[in-house]
Amino acid sequence: MTGTTAAPFTAGDYKSRMTRAAHSAADAGLAGLLVAPGPDMVWLTGYTPTAVTERLTLLVLAPGRDPVLVVPTLEAADAEKADGAAVLSLRDWTDGTDPYAVTAGLLARDGRFGVSDNAWAIHLLGLQKALPDTSYASLTDALPMLRAVKDAAELELLAAAGAAADATFEEIRKVPFAGRRESDVGHDLADLLRRFGHDQVDFTIVGSGPNGANPHHEVGDRVLQDGDMVVLDFGGLKDGYGSDTTRTVHVGPPTAEEREVHDIVRAAQEAGFRAVRPGVACQEVDRAARAVIAGAGYGEFFIHRTGHGIGVTTHEPPYMIEGEEQPLVPGMCFSVEPGIYLPGRFGVRIEDIVTVTADGGRRFNNTTREMVVVG
Amino acid sequence: MTGTTAAPFTAGDYKSRMTRAAHSAADAGLAGLLVAPGPDMVWLTGYTPTAVTERLTLLVLAPGRDPVLVVPTLEAADAEKADGAAVLSLRDWTDGTDPYAVTAGLLARDGRFGVSDNAWAIHLLGLQKALPDTSYASLTDALPMLRAVKDAAELELLAAAGAAADATFEEIRKVPFAGRRESDVGHDLADLLRRFGHDQVDFTIVGSGPNGANPHHEVGDRVLQDGDMVVLDFGGLKDGYGSDTTRTVHVGPPTAEEREVHDIVRAAQEAGFRAVRPGVACQEVDRAARAVIAGAGYGEFFIHRTGHGIGVTTHEPPYMIEGEEQPLVPGMCFSVEPGIYLPGRFGVRIEDIVTVTADGGRRFNNTTREMVVVG
Repeated sequence: MTGTTAAPFTAGDYKSRMTRAAHSAADAGLAGLLVAPGPDMVWLTGYTPTAVTERLTLLVLAPGRDPVLVVPTLEAADAEKADGAAVLSLRDWTDGTDPYAVTAGLLARDGRFGVSDNAWAIHLLGLQKALPDTSYASLTDALPMLRAVKDAAELELLAAAGAAADATFEEIRKVPFAGRRESDVGHDLADLLRRFGHDQVDFTIVGSGPNGANPHHEVGDRVLQDGDMVVLDFGGLKDGYGSDTTRTVHVGPPTAEEREVHDIVRAAQEAGFRAVRPGVACQEVDRAARAVIAGAGYGEFFIHRTGHGIGVTTHEPPYMIEGEEQPLVPGMCFSVEPGIYLPGRFGVRIEDIVTVTADGGRRFNNTTREMVVVG
Repeated sequence: MTGTTAAPFTAGDYKSRMTRAAHSAADAGLAGLLVAPGPDMVWLTGYTPTAVTERLTLLVLAPGRDPVLVVPTLEAADAEKADGAAVLSLRDWTDGTDPYAVTAGLLARDGRFGVSDNAWAIHLLGLQKALPDTSYASLTDALPMLRAVKDAAELELLAAAGAAADATFEEIRKVPFAGRRESDVGHDLADLLRRFGHDQVDFTIVGSGPNGANPHHEVGDRVLQDGDMVVLDFGGLKDGYGSDTTRTVHVGPPTAEEREVHDIVRAAQEAGFRAVRPGVACQEVDRAARAVIAGAGYGEFFIHRTGHGIGVTTHEPPYMIEGEEQPLVPGMCFSVEPGIYLPGRFGVRIEDIVTVTADGGRRFNNTTREMVVVG
C-alpha cells in the first residue's frame, strides 16, 4: 500500500491533528516532535512509505512553524500523493547527501524533542551526532495520549472494524471445531476477517484446552476435541483502523466448573465496561474487572492488564492497568478483556473494544458474551 | 510466523555467527552488539518475535561472554523455540519491571556498543538513560559487512530464491500485457512468486512506458499498450532469503532506438558482472557498468547505484556505488542492475543477483537478458 490509507480523512483533518500535536508538544516543554513512518505518521499525515528503510523519512512538527516532511528524493512523488501532503512542505534529500544535516537545519540546536517510539536507532543516532546539544524523549514517555482521543470519523472506522470482527465470530461459530487443528481454525479466522473487509490480519489466537491457559499462545498443531474450552482472540486493520475481540467457546457441553469460570469472566468484563465514563482513571477499569475475579477466588489466575488502547494500531495507549491514573476522555477507545487462566487446564477471556461516551461507554463488539457451544 | 524461520540452520551455525559477530565487534573497538528483532536477530539466532512492539527484546553479544537474549516473560516460550535458543541464555523480564535496568546489568557502564539500525528509538533512549556514560553506533556504521559474506547453506537458499524468481519471469512473459493494468501484472507477479515458494513478496514493479523512466515507480493504473517498454522488477523472501531480479520486456515489436537502449543496458550489466571477483572494490562494479552507459552517451540517464547486497533482507550492504572501497569477498551476494531512464518516455533496467566466487562471479538469475517481446 503506497502513499495513502483508505481512511476518509481530508487535508484539513491532518492539519488539525498536526496543529494539536504541536500544541501538546509545547505544553509538554518540547521544542518539537520527530515523527517516523508508522502509526504516528499515518495518523498525522496519511502517509505510509512503500518500505521503511535506512533512508530517513521524518515529519518535523514544531510549535508555531509549518510542518515539514523530510523525505528521500526518490520517494518524494509518493509522499506528495498522501492526503496530508497539501498541508505540509516536503524537504527532499538525495542519496549521497546528509539527511541529518537537512533535518538539523529545521531544529532548535539545544531543544528537547519527542520522537516516535519506533523511529530507527540509526536515525536517532544521526540526529544526536548532528546536534549534540539536543535531547530526546519517546512519544510514549512524552505524549502518551497523542492519538488516544478519537474524532467522529475515527470512531466510525473503529465501529466498522468491530462490526467486521463480530461478523467473523458469527461465521466461525458455525465451522466444525472438533477434529481440526487450532491452526485450521486460525486460518478460517484470518480468511473471514479479510472477507469482512480487513486489509491486515494482526493476530488469530486459537487457544484450546491447556493452550488457552497461556494468554500469549497463538495457534498450534493441537487437534480440537470434544470437551475443549477454546479462546478465540482475533483482529487486525480495516480501512486503517483496528479490531480486537475475544470470545471463549466450548466444544460440546461444558462442565459446571467451566461454566462457572466463564460466568465470572463475563461478570468481570461487564464490571470493567460499567466502570467506563469520563473522568474515571484508567486503573479503575482494571480494578473493577479484577475485583470480580478476585472476589470469586480466582485473582491469582488473572495475569495481565485489563485493556489497551486501539486506533491505527491494535495496541497503543491508554492502558487499563493498575498505576495508570490518566482520566478517561470521551473518544478514547480501548479493550476491556479480563481473563482467568488455569495452568495446564484451560483459559477464558472475553474482550470488547469500548469507547468512552459523554456519560459512559459504548461497545464496538456486540456478539453474545454467553458461552457459545460449538461442534 | 513465530519463533523460527524455515531456514535449515542449526544451533551450531548460529553459535558460529554470534561468535564471529562478537569478534568483529571487538576488532571494531566495540564493547558489544545490541541486536534488535529483524534481519540481524534472525540471522544471528533464528528468532523472529510474533510482533515487534514497545516491549524490549534485545540480543546482547559481548566479546568473551555468552550471548544473552533479553525477552519479555510472555514471549520467553516463543524465544525458546528458536533454532539458536540452545546456544544463548534467556533473561526474561515481566511487565512492570524495567527492561533497561536488566539490560544495563549485562553491559559495560562506559562501553561503546553497536546497535541494530532498526532498533526502536524508545529502546535506545531507555538504554542511554540507564547507562549515561555509554555510547552507540549503528551496525551500518560500525560493522556494515556483518552479514555480507554468506556461507554455503545461505548461498543455496539465495540460489533457490533466484530460481523461483526466474520461474516467475518465465511464466509472466506468457501472460497478456496489452489491455491490462500495471497493477494486474503486478498481482500476477506476486501470485507467481508465492506459487514458486516465496513466503513474502517485497516488491512487484511494473513500469510501463513513461512510468518505467521512474525507477521508484511500483505499479499504477496505467493500461499497458502495444509499443510499451515495461520494466518488471520483483522479489521477496523464500525460506528466509531474498530474490530480486529485473527484466525489461516490450509489448509488440520495439523501435530501433528502444532496441539500442536495451542493448546498451545489457552490455552494461554484462560489464558489471564481469568486474566481479575477489579483491575488487565494490565501486569498480559500479564503474564498469557505468562506463558502458556513459560511453554510449547515456550517462546522465543512469541515475542510481549499480547494486545492493541481499540475504535475509532484499536490500543490505555491500552497495555497488562510487566511493565504496570495500573489497569483494567470496560469498558476498548483491545485485548488478544498471538502467537507463528517459524522462517521459521509457526506462530499461536489467538485474541479476550475483555472488562472488573464488575467481569471479556467479549469477543466481539466468533468464534471458535479450529483450523479450510480450503480447
